[in-house]
Amino acid sequence: MNQQAATSSDAAFLSAFHHVATIGATDNSGVDRQALTPEDKQTRDWMREWAVAHGFEVRVDAIGNMFACLQLVPDDAAGQNDETLAEATSPATTDTTPTGTTPTGTNPAKATPTDTAPYVLIGSHLDSQPLGGRFDGAYGVIAGLFAALRVKEQFAESGLQPTFNLAVVNWFNEEGGRFAPSIMGSSVYAGLFDLDEMLAVTDLDGTSVSEALTAIGYAGTDTPPEAISYAEIHIEQGRILEREATDIGVVEASWYTQKLDIDVLGEQSHTGATAMADRHDALVAAAKVVLAVAEVVDEFEEEALVSSVGQHVVEPNSPIVVPRRVHMVADLRSSDPTIVQAARDSLKKQIAEIARAHDITINVEDFDIRDKRRFPTEGVELAEKAVANEGLSIRRLETMAGHDSVAMNHRVPAVMMFVPSVDGVSHCEREFTTDDDMLRGVRVLASVAGELVHGELAEVCDGAVWVGSSVAEVRA
Amino acid sequence: MNQQAATSSDAAFLSAFHHVATIGATDNSGVDRQALTPEDKQTRDWMREWAVAHGFEVRVDAIGNMFACLQLVPDDAAGQNDETLAEATSPATTDTTPTGTTPTGTNPAKATPTDTAPYVLIGSHLDSQPLGGRFDGAYGVIAGLFAALRVKEQFAESGLQPTFNLAVVNWFNEEGGRFAPSIMGSSVYAGLFDLDEMLAVTDLDGTSVSEALTAIGYAGTDTPPEAISYAEIHIEQGRILEREATDIGVVEASWYTQKLDIDVLGEQSHTGATAMADRHDALVAAAKVVLAVAEVVDEFEEEALVSSVGQHVVEPNSPIVVPRRVHMVADLRSSDPTIVQAARDSLKKQIAEIARAHDITINVEDFDIRDKRRFPTEGVELAEKAVANEGLSIRRLETMAGHDSVAMNHRVPAVMMFVPSVDGVSHCEREFTTDDDMLRGVRVLASVAGELVHGELAEVCDGAVWVGSSVAEVRA
Repeated sequence: MNQQAATSSDAAFLSAFHHVATIGATDNSGVDRQALTPEDKQTRDWMREWAVAHGFEVRVDAIGNMFACLQLVPDDAAGQNDETLAEATSPATTDTTPTGTTPTGTNPAKATPTDTAPYVLIGSHLDSQPLGGRFDGAYGVIAGLFAALRVKEQFAESGLQPTFNLAVVNWFNEEGGRFAPSIMGSSVYAGLFDLDEMLAVTDLDGTSVSEALTAIGYAGTDTPPEAISYAEIHIEQGRILEREATDIGVVEASWYTQKLDIDVLGEQSHTGATAMADRHDALVAAAKVVLAVAEVVDEFEEEALVSSVGQHVVEPNSPIVVPRRVHMVADLRSSDPTIVQAARDSLKKQIAEIARAHDITINVEDFDIRDKRRFPTEGVELAEKAVANEGLSIRRLETMAGHDSVAMNHRVPAVMMFVPSVDGVSHCEREFTTDDDMLRGVRVLASVAGELVHGELAEVCDGAVWVGSSVAEVRA
Repeated sequence: MNQQAATSSDAAFLSAFHHVATIGATDNSGVDRQALTPEDKQTRDWMREWAVAHGFEVRVDAIGNMFACLQLVPDDAAGQNDETLAEATSPATTDTTPTGTTPTGTNPAKATPTDTAPYVLIGSHLDSQPLGGRFDGAYGVIAGLFAALRVKEQFAESGLQPTFNLAVVNWFNEEGGRFAPSIMGSSVYAGLFDLDEMLAVTDLDGTSVSEALTAIGYAGTDTPPEAISYAEIHIEQGRILEREATDIGVVEASWYTQKLDIDVLGEQSHTGATAMADRHDALVAAAKVVLAVAEVVDEFEEEALVSSVGQHVVEPNSPIVVPRRVHMVADLRSSDPTIVQAARDSLKKQIAEIARAHDITINVEDFDIRDKRRFPTEGVELAEKAVANEGLSIRRLETMAGHDSVAMNHRVPAVMMFVPSVDGVSHCEREFTTDDDMLRGVRVLASVAGELVHGELAEVCDGAVWVGSSVAEVRA
């Protein structure tokens, strides 16, 4: 066994995973590594050092995405691959994305001159929610690093010629807790979000993404590797796999999601000197809005819609002042877009009534609408084949949560896989997945990545523009 | 007309008042001068410079209270006044305050050796709520400065011998928006709050009072003047005087108030991946608590109780995370203490039900209980006489809001007066009182202060311990 075989072992994976879980560790086994904090920098530094030590070349792009690149296609094969590249990536130049922006952080039409072929990207994100779990995102990046080493070993052992190169990516700010919107780095890469707009986004303290990237030394200038396909493995964050004792989930489609920006504008007054009848208390009206958002799910079938208010800021937030303003963000998600739209319409009506009853202004704006999107059937079948080869069980499902793979699926064919989550909990410290389940996932990811490097899924683009699939196709 | 007569004129008062309103001025005619901010420092610097320029000696005590002192009693009269002093202030040493603390910021049993007699204190506070009004507090301090000059002039012109000295006070942190509890500086002076405990209080950013005082250069070391009586003039922050077209209000008693610290502890989870049935959303439960606090007033007669939640902080406050915690402060006030107690009991019961229904923990703690207190009848009558002498109208009322005078009324006999507030609004930018109403208030305050310096109200203590009056006496 050579040195790299030794370091791609199950034991080495578990050692690396549990080491990374100590960075930003919280008292109750979680982690707190919001994007671009000192703790995020530490995990980034770890990834950079580990990747360089294991023969990867590390690139950082302008939005802070990190790519650990393995050039599997030798220089002398570059000429042969140029043709494949031109054919496979020409769609990117005509891709009309939902937001109508063009990718500014990437150069999709052309491989970097030094690259021998486009890259299969695999990965996820190392940032976390505040007091988040240690598996969400980090598992997918570390699984990606070990899967990539195994793919390299397999090609070296088999003597086969890889069609594409392979890179492991740590996407910037998937969580969106500090800088909204979430899934930021992969969306910029995929051309869904504008780079400059995202660099100007500020956190609640007024620090911009651009300033925060510079502060931790990750405002990159590298041209990122050009993707030909994408694969990601993630914890399920639901109970389906656990309940059905299934090893792996493969995602057929992402849920339709949208947010509502709700601004409740009352009038500030003295809590101790203003008659109740004279008040225009923004918080009392906001409380009714919070309950309306929670209860709108009852208008539909059980669990057909999930809703929440996660961000909710009171001004001036003084114990003896009647609040003048509450600014909140509501989140609506369903497998069925018409349910989200009906819930939104119902809420807008109810909120207008609350505003009238309290004689105050409540502004409601739609934002961050993410269409339901199908993942390519060829990718689902590829995962099913890989799982069968490993002697494991698999089922198809949809994802309620957003993921980097959902953004990447706009740009290139993507495969999204899940491993089980104990109790289905996530975004909290008691999020848990067993070592055995994680190791099964690494094996399956390595198998899928090997097929992609070999050229699988590239043919999805053959003679057709890859623009993902709209909800209309999914529902048809 | 000498120089000081000129500078105590109505025009000079209005000029000074409207100048101070420019410090920390907001877009909509309010001010934002929370305690110990750069804007608070600017108003403090203004007061110090103005007072020194007009012959006052300025002292700053350990909690940051500022005293502009006029020594009206000449040195050769000190012996005569020592006796009055000993008699009048002996109660202070036996005063058992409601919180059982002893005054640490003051030295009430003894006048500073250099002082010729105890002081009549008049004043209010220069700090404001965030986006607060320009009248609340600042009016009382600036009115105090001009009233003090007039008293000095009157004694000089009449040739009469003052019994006491006179000082104008700017109390630290009356508002409590940044550092809780409110009415902090006067409560420390009056011995109701412990100095060291208050110096250790931190704002939401973790900055302590002690650090913030040092940062703006107002961590004082002076022994404050020793009070013999206290008078304050303030905007009403209600509609009674305006509705009845009355010039001046005199306060008979303060309302009973208490706060509830309510900590809603749910469980953090992913908004997009957690089934509604699996959530323990702290914000949804908190919204029900906010509504319960607002609606508990309906259990009593109209306007017999006022309630509010002014402070309400959500954690982790991320758009795609189900909130794990909401920490809020509720405020209950009534003229009748039994109503506050009944409301509190009702809320505790309702909150326990909300916690059970959501399977989460909600901790509720009583704090900042302020007993209903009577102001001395002799002071009320003194104000009525002064108003009559000025040819103005007056009525008695109670104060729903807390004031520095309420704290001072624990320590020495206090007179609290109001001028009308347009529309009764306060703690907001559109707070307003006319120049004419302010000028009438300055005249009345000067008249009352003159009587106090002459020795009025000191006799309230003759042969009796002054401990204010408990609610039992008021209700008897």
